[in-house]
Amino acid sequence: MDAIEVIRAKRDGGELTAAQIDWVIDAYTRGGVADEQMSALAMAILLNGMNRREIAGWTQAMIRSGERMDWSALDRPTADKHSTGGVGDKITLPLAPLVAACGAYVPQLSGRGLGHTGGTLDKLESIPGWRASLSNDEMLHVLRAAGAVVCAAGSGLAPADKKLYALRDVTGTVESIPLIASSIMSKKIAEGTGSLVLDVKVGSGAFMKTPETARELAETMVALGTDAGVRTVALLTAMDRPLGRAVGNALEVAEAVEVLGGGGPADVVELTVRLAQEMLEAAGVSAGKDPAKALADGSAMDAWRRMIAAQGGDPDALLPRAAETLTVSAPASGVLTRLDAYAVGLAAWRLGAGRARKEDPVSFGAGVTLHAKPGDLVHEGQPLMTLHADETGRFSRALEALEGAYAVGPVDEERLPLVIDRITA
Amino acid sequence: MDAIEVIRAKRDGGELTAAQIDWVIDAYTRGGVADEQMSALAMAILLNGMNRREIAGWTQAMIRSGERMDWSALDRPTADKHSTGGVGDKITLPLAPLVAACGAYVPQLSGRGLGHTGGTLDKLESIPGWRASLSNDEMLHVLRAAGAVVCAAGSGLAPADKKLYALRDVTGTVESIPLIASSIMSKKIAEGTGSLVLDVKVGSGAFMKTPETARELAETMVALGTDAGVRTVALLTAMDRPLGRAVGNALEVAEAVEVLGGGGPADVVELTVRLAQEMLEAAGVSAGKDPAKALADGSAMDAWRRMIAAQGGDPDALLPRAAETLTVSAPASGVLTRLDAYAVGLAAWRLGAGRARKEDPVSFGAGVTLHAKPGDLVHEGQPLMTLHADETGRFSRALEALEGAYAVGPVDEERLPLVIDRITA
Repeated sequence: MDAIEVIRAKRDGGELTAAQIDWVIDAYTRGGVADEQMSALAMAILLNGMNRREIAGWTQAMIRSGERMDWSALDRPTADKHSTGGVGDKITLPLAPLVAACGAYVPQLSGRGLGHTGGTLDKLESIPGWRASLSNDEMLHVLRAAGAVVCAAGSGLAPADKKLYALRDVTGTVESIPLIASSIMSKKIAEGTGSLVLDVKVGSGAFMKTPETARELAETMVALGTDAGVRTVALLTAMDRPLGRAVGNALEVAEAVEVLGGGGPADVVELTVRLAQEMLEAAGVSAGKDPAKALADGSAMDAWRRMIAAQGGDPDALLPRAAETLTVSAPASGVLTRLDAYAVGLAAWRLGAGRARKEDPVSFGAGVTLHAKPGDLVHEGQPLMTLHADETGRFSRALEALEGAYAVGPVDEERLPLVIDRITA
Repeated sequence: MDAIEVIRAKRDGGELTAAQIDWVIDAYTRGGVADEQMSALAMAILLNGMNRREIAGWTQAMIRSGERMDWSALDRPTADKHSTGGVGDKITLPLAPLVAACGAYVPQLSGRGLGHTGGTLDKLESIPGWRASLSNDEMLHVLRAAGAVVCAAGSGLAPADKKLYALRDVTGTVESIPLIASSIMSKKIAEGTGSLVLDVKVGSGAFMKTPETARELAETMVALGTDAGVRTVALLTAMDRPLGRAVGNALEVAEAVEVLGGGGPADVVELTVRLAQEMLEAAGVSAGKDPAKALADGSAMDAWRRMIAAQGGDPDALLPRAAETLTVSAPASGVLTRLDAYAVGLAAWRLGAGRARKEDPVSFGAGVTLHAKPGDLVHEGQPLMTLHADETGRFSRALEALEGAYAVGPVDEERLPLVIDRITA
C-alpha cells in the first residue's frame, strides 16, 4: 500500500477501505507517510467527506496509535463531558466536582485555548500551585481523593490525533466534520470514560455557526461513541452570546466558584445542572444526589476543593487580577438585544486571555466582565462591561473587536434557547 | 497574507486573487509556505479548479520565480514543440533538426522519463558522449552551430514549478488540468521560444485518456501561451497505440535516424512533417524549405549530426543493444485490430527502458520492437514484437503487461486518426 493510492481513492470520491485507513494512520504516526501527503489527504477528506464506517475506522485507528486508559478498577461508574468550545464556557470547572459529588467519577482530559475560545487548563492554571500534567497513577489518586480530575492528556494518548491536529491547524483543513468528530472522539474514547455528554455549541462564538452543522457534528460523534461502547449523548447549546458574565481565565474560575457556592449567573447554573443530570443518567447513577442540591449544600464545593488541592492548587489563594480596567457603557436606554459571543471572545483574546501561537503564555487576569446580558434592561451610561488587561495598550484593539457587537433597542428580540436540542443514538 | 487564508479561499470554492497567487508561489519558492500547506492547496485546486485568469496568474508567478531566457539576439525566429508524452514518442529527435533545416531555431528544454512514458533526454543519452546539461552560453553555441538544441532545463528556470512538481508527484495532485497546464507552460514560456506547437496525446498510453480532457488541456495551454505572447497551437494526436515501431531509448534513436534518412514508419514520418509545418507556420517562416523535402535531401540529417556533435555526441557511434531478446508471435492469422499503447509502454518500462524513481538509471538497449502495427495483416506464428532486455529475468513481467494488450480478428476496427484535431487561440 502507498500514500498516493490512498490519497487518490479519496480524491476521486471513493470510500477508503478499513485496511487503507489503518495503514495510513499507522504509517503517518510512524513517519512513513509525510506531512505533505497527509495534508493532501485531509483536504480531500474535507472536500469529499467520509461516511460513518470510514469515520469510525479513522477514529479507531487513531485510538490504536496510542494507549487506552482503563478505569474499570474503580468502584463507581465514570462520566465525562466535552464541549466544542465557546466564549465564557467554564462549565467543566463546576461540573466535574458536581458530578463527583453526585456519585460518578469524572476522569477528564482537557486542553488549552487557541484562538478566541478559552481552554479549561489555562483557566485552572490561574489557581496558584495547580498542575495540569499528571501521570496515570496521579490521575487515579486524584480521582479517588476527589471523585474528579481535570488534567492534560499525556503524549501517549492518540498520538496520531496530536500530529494530525497540528497539521490541520496550519493547512486549512480544520473545518471537516469527519475530522473534527474523529479527533474529539478518539481522545475521549481512549480516555476510557464509560459515558460521555457532548456539549455542541451553536452560534457566532462557536465553531459551528448553525444548528444544522452542529447537529451533523453531534450525530456523528454520538454514533462514534455508541459504536465504541461509550454511552454518549449530545446537547446543542447556544453560543450566540457569551455564557455567564465572566470571559477570561481567573475571571471564569471566580465565577465557577460562585456557582459551586450556590450562586452565579442563571445560564451557567442551568447548563451545569442540566449537563450533570445527563452525565449521571448516562453513567447509570440513578440513586445519586440531585445536582441542584449538591450545589446548595456545599458538597460540590467540597469536591472542588479536594480536586484542586489534590493537583497542588490552593483553593483559598487569591486569584491573579489584571492591573488595568476599562468600562464600556450602554450607548442608550432600553433592552440589550444583542451581545455577540464571537466579538466578546475576540476582545478577551486581544486583552491577553488567549494565545495566538501554542507556545505563547496567557494573561490569567485578562478578560471581560459583563454587567448586562441579552434581555436585560440597561440605562444609557450604565456600565455594560469591564475590560481587564495587564497593559492599557491592549484596550484599543479590544474595543475595535466590540464595535457593532451589541445593540440596545426598545423591545427584546428572539434568540436561541440555552439548550436547543438533545441528540441520542 | 498567510498560507491558511489562501488555502481556505480555494477550499471554499473561491477565486484566488492575483496578489494571493503571487504571494503563495513566491513564499513557497523561498520556503515561507511549507510543503504540507502547498499540497493542501494543490488538492483544493485539483478538486475546485482554477479559472483562466487564475491559471494565467499561477503560470506567470512560476515564471517569475526564476530566470527567463531570451533568444532575441538570434537572426531567425524560434519555435519549439512540447508533447504531453506517449509510448514510442520520439518525434522531438527528428523534428528539432528538421525544423532547424527548414529555417527556424529550435531551443528545446526537455525532460527525463518517469513511469511508462519515455523521456527525450534518456533517449539522446544512449548516444555515446552526448551531454544533456548545457549552460545558457553552450545552448546558444549549439543553436548557432546546428539550428537546434535539446537539453535539460537548468535549475534557474521556473524553480517554483520544479519544487511543486516534485511535491505533486508524491501527494496525488498530479491530475489537475490547471496545474498540468501551468507546469508545462511556465517552463516553455520561460524558455523564451517565440512560437510553440503542443502535441497533446490522447488514449491509453497518454496522460489524457479521452479527447474531451485532452481538448480542455490543449485549450488551456493555448490560451496561456497566447496570453504570454507566444504564438501557440495544439494538435490532439492518437496515443491508443504506440507511435512508430520502436519503444525504448536507443531503439527510438535508431528509428529517428531512419526518419532523418528519408525512411522510417509512416506514422512517425507523418506526425514529424505535420508538426514541422505547424512550427514553421507559427514561427512565421513561410519562405523556408518544405519539411518533406528536408527529410529527403539529407539537410535534416545534416542538422541532426551537427546538433549531436555540438553536444559531445558521436553520431556515427554504435548504439547500445540489449543482451537478450524474446519474440512474441501472432496468436492467429488476420488483422491486428488492437495493440494497446499503455501495455506496450509498461512492458518497455519493465524491460528496463524506464525508471521507477528519479534517481534510477535506465537501460539504453531495453524496449520493444513492433513487427506489426494495428491494421496490418498477420499470420499465425509470425513475429509480432521483439522484447529487448539486459537480463532474461525481466521478460516474464513484461509479458504479463502484454496479456490482453493485442487482438487479431477477421476485419479491421475503427481507431483514432493520427491527428484528431487542431486547437488554436
